[in-house]
Amino acid sequence: MINEGYKAMLGGKSVIRELSEYATRRGAEIGYENVFDFSLGNPSVPAPDDFTRTMVDLYEHGDPVAIHGYSPSLGIPSVCATIAELLNRRFGVPYEAHHIFPTTGAAGALSHAMRAVTKPGDEIITFAPYFPEYQPYVAGTGAKLTVVPADTANFQINFDAFEAALNANVQAVLINTPNNPSGAVYSAETLTRLSAILAAKQTEYGHDIFLISDEPYREIVFDGGEQPYPARFYSNTLTCYSFSKSLSLPGERIGYVAVNPRATDADLLVAMMGQISRGTGHNCPPSSIQLGVAKVIDETSDLSVYETNMNLLYDALTSLGFEVVRPGGTFYIFPKALESDATAFCLKAKEYDLILVPSDSFGVTGHFRMAYCVDTEKVKRSIPALERFVREQYGR
Amino acid sequence: MINEGYKAMLGGKSVIRELSEYATRRGAEIGYENVFDFSLGNPSVPAPDDFTRTMVDLYEHGDPVAIHGYSPSLGIPSVCATIAELLNRRFGVPYEAHHIFPTTGAAGALSHAMRAVTKPGDEIITFAPYFPEYQPYVAGTGAKLTVVPADTANFQINFDAFEAALNANVQAVLINTPNNPSGAVYSAETLTRLSAILAAKQTEYGHDIFLISDEPYREIVFDGGEQPYPARFYSNTLTCYSFSKSLSLPGERIGYVAVNPRATDADLLVAMMGQISRGTGHNCPPSSIQLGVAKVIDETSDLSVYETNMNLLYDALTSLGFEVVRPGGTFYIFPKALESDATAFCLKAKEYDLILVPSDSFGVTGHFRMAYCVDTEKVKRSIPALERFVREQYGR
Repeated sequence: MINEGYKAMLGGKSVIRELSEYATRRGAEIGYENVFDFSLGNPSVPAPDDFTRTMVDLYEHGDPVAIHGYSPSLGIPSVCATIAELLNRRFGVPYEAHHIFPTTGAAGALSHAMRAVTKPGDEIITFAPYFPEYQPYVAGTGAKLTVVPADTANFQINFDAFEAALNANVQAVLINTPNNPSGAVYSAETLTRLSAILAAKQTEYGHDIFLISDEPYREIVFDGGEQPYPARFYSNTLTCYSFSKSLSLPGERIGYVAVNPRATDADLLVAMMGQISRGTGHNCPPSSIQLGVAKVIDETSDLSVYETNMNLLYDALTSLGFEVVRPGGTFYIFPKALESDATAFCLKAKEYDLILVPSDSFGVTGHFRMAYCVDTEKVKRSIPALERFVREQYGR
Repeated sequence: MINEGYKAMLGGKSVIRELSEYATRRGAEIGYENVFDFSLGNPSVPAPDDFTRTMVDLYEHGDPVAIHGYSPSLGIPSVCATIAELLNRRFGVPYEAHHIFPTTGAAGALSHAMRAVTKPGDEIITFAPYFPEYQPYVAGTGAKLTVVPADTANFQINFDAFEAALNANVQAVLINTPNNPSGAVYSAETLTRLSAILAAKQTEYGHDIFLISDEPYREIVFDGGEQPYPARFYSNTLTCYSFSKSLSLPGERIGYVAVNPRATDADLLVAMMGQISRGTGHNCPPSSIQLGVAKVIDETSDLSVYETNMNLLYDALTSLGFEVVRPGGTFYIFPKALESDATAFCLKAKEYDLILVPSDSFGVTGHFRMAYCVDTEKVKRSIPALERFVREQYGR
């Protein structure tokens, strides 16, 4: 008999997907170039040429039986070793190959990390604003997601609210930095304080609390800055990464979990993730893509366009009187809306072919998200539309 | 805190994996060419040249942002349409694109199909001998797997045992044809009888019973035969397929679920699978591989070597006095062991560097599986070792 639970979920479509589909339909009417579609976080720059050349070389000169053969269930050993070596070199954490578990992107990484350190009924805490897909990701594990209200002043962590939310049933804390949707980069100060609280609570509760750190935007940090590496601050950290944004390969489903070698049972966790895979039908990311990514491990796409776009939008929004925290990274900006009802605000914007995402599904009211992974030329053309929208609707 | 359930699973390694790892270690000692490794079902023939050329062309001339972009959550529409058209043309079932859900291989397909038509606590029936990974696949959904004893005379279905096992809690029946490990191809007669029983039981119990048909070996059928298409026999069929064997792409994780358009809620099931993905971290098979496979949809690797190998082994085994059902397809053969304890038999064979898999984990006692997806030359060289083993150990 069909599963009524999943059938019932068919009603609840993602707001972002719906807006993106609207933008596509509207584009069919007026030309997609005339729709200022800021809905979807799909990278707009190509993969590095070196990745393309590497893959052509693999296909042309590699042994097809080897390239396309089954990956061992814990990933291709040479690929795991390459990733471990990179992380060690960049962040000074002594990973070895057996601490790295290749996954189908960050979604696959989170799915394994959460199952490895929680069981059904446990509680996972995350911080608003947060990526809405965390809800189904956590629901799928049987754990419960608690969302700590945002620090809307700067989108770091609201520590008072966090300490109030903590309790002995919390087995994991989930962070996302640089953050989707706010663009905030958690500072060393934030990570130090978070780590101290978690360490104290581990002692108080007498059990481990794992930090699951979702870092697909790690390489997109502005003003020459860097994302401080969360695993350096806290031993029980599972770092979840995806090459979707750094190499512009979102459709190829390639990422990893890196288990901090200092974590409890660090030498068992990757093997446990192999067992988790058997129950979810995961069975490793594609072999050829594992091999290809390992060969360009030090590269990224040309990510500079995102900073250019951010500055254009940040300047335009502030000059229009928006309250907005300047993003430190990602390709998102998260201003305060001009009325308290974010959905009403975004519906009005749609009349100007501005596709903005209301903040409610991110766990914050009265804001909106713009994903500026679009051509700079389109960002520039969107500014007069923004001006007209604000003037006509809000008299500014 | 780490999940004790998954930690406990670390003890229970797959017998097949252990034997394969032994074969690799033994190969390091005496040269892998001297190990008659029949443990693993990893295709030994290359992907078609057309697939390689297609991929090189995609990489060299395609738009990287499009090729590597996110696949829609229900798969790339043109790919789904191509698969639907192929199935319609070959099997006369009127699939449309929205009945096809691309997945990460057959493991991903089964994971979605099972969750779509059962809920935790439900019962799924399968037939011995069966692929051992069905146990964790089903356990991961929360349903319970019941194994119907084998028809050891010809490895079709033991219908008496099946009818005895059926009860109102059974929501799905899982078949695998051509079958791993027996090599049996379910006949039209078997599928007709299975379908009639399921139809009658649906009426008796007042609910749907879905047939989940796992068909990764569909294209490997011997003697010019064909696998009768199960979905033609029974409306409530979810066909699970993988290109792992037909195109020799096991590591690329590409397959699909095809929902029979005549099934209950046929137009909802693919969308439900999209929801299931959100909870398991699946999020579509790799985009470039979806596109590549669709372009060679009518092709297969040169699969003839498997039939050559089967005939060599079947003739050798029968002439050595083994009781063996001649495989109709796959790259497996499943003879009766020469003593009742299959594990003891296979341990003795190891002394002759013959790596055979005992039948117990397939749900049958006293047999062994040989995976003959190896070079024909090695199959030939293995026969004297088989002869010596049988003569010295069993005096034949």
